[in-house]
Amino acid sequence: MERIERHACFGGWQEVWQHKSESLDCTVNFAVYLPPAAAEKKCPVLYWLSGLTCNEQNFITKANAQRYAAEHGVIIVAPDTSPRGDDVANDDAYDLGQGAGFYVNATQQPWAPHYRMYDYIRDELPALIEQHFPATDARAISGHSMGGHGALVLALKNPGRYRSVSAFAPIVAPSQVPWGEKAFAAYLGDDRDTWLEYDAVVLIAKAQEKLPLLVDQGLADNFLEEQLRTGLLEDACSKAGYPATIRYQEGYDHSYYFIASFIEEHIAHHAAALQG
Amino acid sequence: MERIERHACFGGWQEVWQHKSESLDCTVNFAVYLPPAAAEKKCPVLYWLSGLTCNEQNFITKANAQRYAAEHGVIIVAPDTSPRGDDVANDDAYDLGQGAGFYVNATQQPWAPHYRMYDYIRDELPALIEQHFPATDARAISGHSMGGHGALVLALKNPGRYRSVSAFAPIVAPSQVPWGEKAFAAYLGDDRDTWLEYDAVVLIAKAQEKLPLLVDQGLADNFLEEQLRTGLLEDACSKAGYPATIRYQEGYDHSYYFIASFIEEHIAHHAAALQG
Repeated sequence: MERIERHACFGGWQEVWQHKSESLDCTVNFAVYLPPAAAEKKCPVLYWLSGLTCNEQNFITKANAQRYAAEHGVIIVAPDTSPRGDDVANDDAYDLGQGAGFYVNATQQPWAPHYRMYDYIRDELPALIEQHFPATDARAISGHSMGGHGALVLALKNPGRYRSVSAFAPIVAPSQVPWGEKAFAAYLGDDRDTWLEYDAVVLIAKAQEKLPLLVDQGLADNFLEEQLRTGLLEDACSKAGYPATIRYQEGYDHSYYFIASFIEEHIAHHAAALQG
Repeated sequence: MERIERHACFGGWQEVWQHKSESLDCTVNFAVYLPPAAAEKKCPVLYWLSGLTCNEQNFITKANAQRYAAEHGVIIVAPDTSPRGDDVANDDAYDLGQGAGFYVNATQQPWAPHYRMYDYIRDELPALIEQHFPATDARAISGHSMGGHGALVLALKNPGRYRSVSAFAPIVAPSQVPWGEKAFAAYLGDDRDTWLEYDAVVLIAKAQEKLPLLVDQGLADNFLEEQLRTGLLEDACSKAGYPATIRYQEGYDHSYYFIASFIEEHIAHHAAALQG
C-alpha cells in the first residue's frame, strides 16, 4: 500500500492511497481524510461512494466535506467506483464497466473476475482502514447517484455493520430504471431475481434494523424522473415503517454544487450516529 | 452573451457565461456566483483570479467559496486566465500562452493581439458585470499564485477601484522569479523596466492608497522558495508602511485544499471592506 497524495486540509490531512485489492484483483486508489482529532485518537469512519464516471478524486476535490469532518472528528474514506486497468473489462459507454461498478459482485463474463465492488466496500476496504489508520470500527455510509444506491444497499443488507446511512440523489430502484437494468443485465445476467438483492426499494421491505436514513434529492435533477425515482423509496419506507428523512430541494440539480450545499447536514447526521 | 451553465448552490446560483471579449478579441467564459441576497438587491463583487493552467472552472468547483459568499451577500466573478481559441497564440509549456495570461497587456508578437488580460479584468469585465447582473460598483479582488500576482497588481495600480485585496500563495515579485521572467520576456519584451509596472513588490513602494491586504502562504508549498518568495512582499510592505496581514500556514501546499481551508477568512475580509 502506497500513499500517492497528501495535502493539509482544514487542520487534518487529505490523503490518497494506492493498493492491490484482493477482491478486485487489480490496483486501485482510495482517498482518506484524517481530521485533526485523528492525530490523537481513533475516529469513526464515513464511507462515501461516488457516482457514474467518478473515481476517488471527485468527492475530495468538490464536496468540501473535510471542513465538517474536521469539526466532528470523522474520517472520510472515498474509494474508486470500479476496478481499473488495462486488464480489466471495460465498455465505451459511461454507464458500464470502469467508472460504473454499481457496487455489486458481478457473476457474468467478462465482468466477474474483477467487478466485486460489493465485497471490496463491505469487507476488504474497512479491514484495511481499521488496520492501517487511526479508525474505530464505527462506520457510516453515504453516496451520490450510483453511489447513493451503493450506500443504501450496503447498509440495508448488512445489519450491525453501519450506524447510519444517507444519500444524495440515489438510484433507489435499479431493477426498474434504465441505468440499473443495463448494468445489472451485464453484471448479474438475465435472471431478474438476482437483481433484487441489490435494489434498495426491495431491501427496505425486509430490513432487519432501522438505521438513521437521510436522503436529499434536487428537484431540478434531470435524472429524477427516469433514473432516480425517489418516490419509490418514499413509498417503500412508508410501507415498511422505516423512519427515513427524504427531502426534496427546490432548484438543485445532480451536480456537486448540490452535494456541497447540503453535505454539512449529512456529516452532522452521521456524526450524531457515530458518536452517540 | 450566453449563459452556458446554471446550478443552484447554497441558496444562490452558480452560473457560467460566454461572451465575445473586445479586449481579448476572442470568445471567453467567466463564472459568476449570485448569492441569495442578489435576488432582492444589488450586491458587491469579489473578482477571483486563478493560477497557471486554470480556467473559470477551478475556483467554482473546488474552493467552496459560495458558502461564504452566500452568508455575506457577495457576488463572486471568476474569469478565465487568458484568451482562448485556435486563432490565439499559444505555447506547449504550461506557464506560457493559453492558461497563463499573467494579467498583463502584452506588447510583443505573437501575443499582443489577444493577451490583454489586464484591461479585461480592470475595465471590460466589471463594466459587463455591473451592467448585466445585480452588482454594485463596490469591488474587491483576490487570486491564487499567478492570480494572486494579478490581484495585487490590479489593486495596487488602480487606486479607488477596489475596496480590498487578498491572495493565496501569490507570485509577489514576477520580475525576480523564473515564472515571471519567462512570461514577462515573452509578453513584454526584454526591457525589464516595463516589467516593473506589473510587479507587486515594486508597486507597493509607490502605492497611493492602502487597502486592506490579506495574504496566506502555505509553508509546504513547493513553489515558495523559487517562484513565490513571500518574504519579498513582507519586506516591501514593511518598508512602505503598508499594513498587510501576511500569514504562513504550517503544512499547507499550493493546492485547492489550502485555498478551501482558508477561503472563509478571505471572504470575510472582503465582505467587511465591501459592506463597511
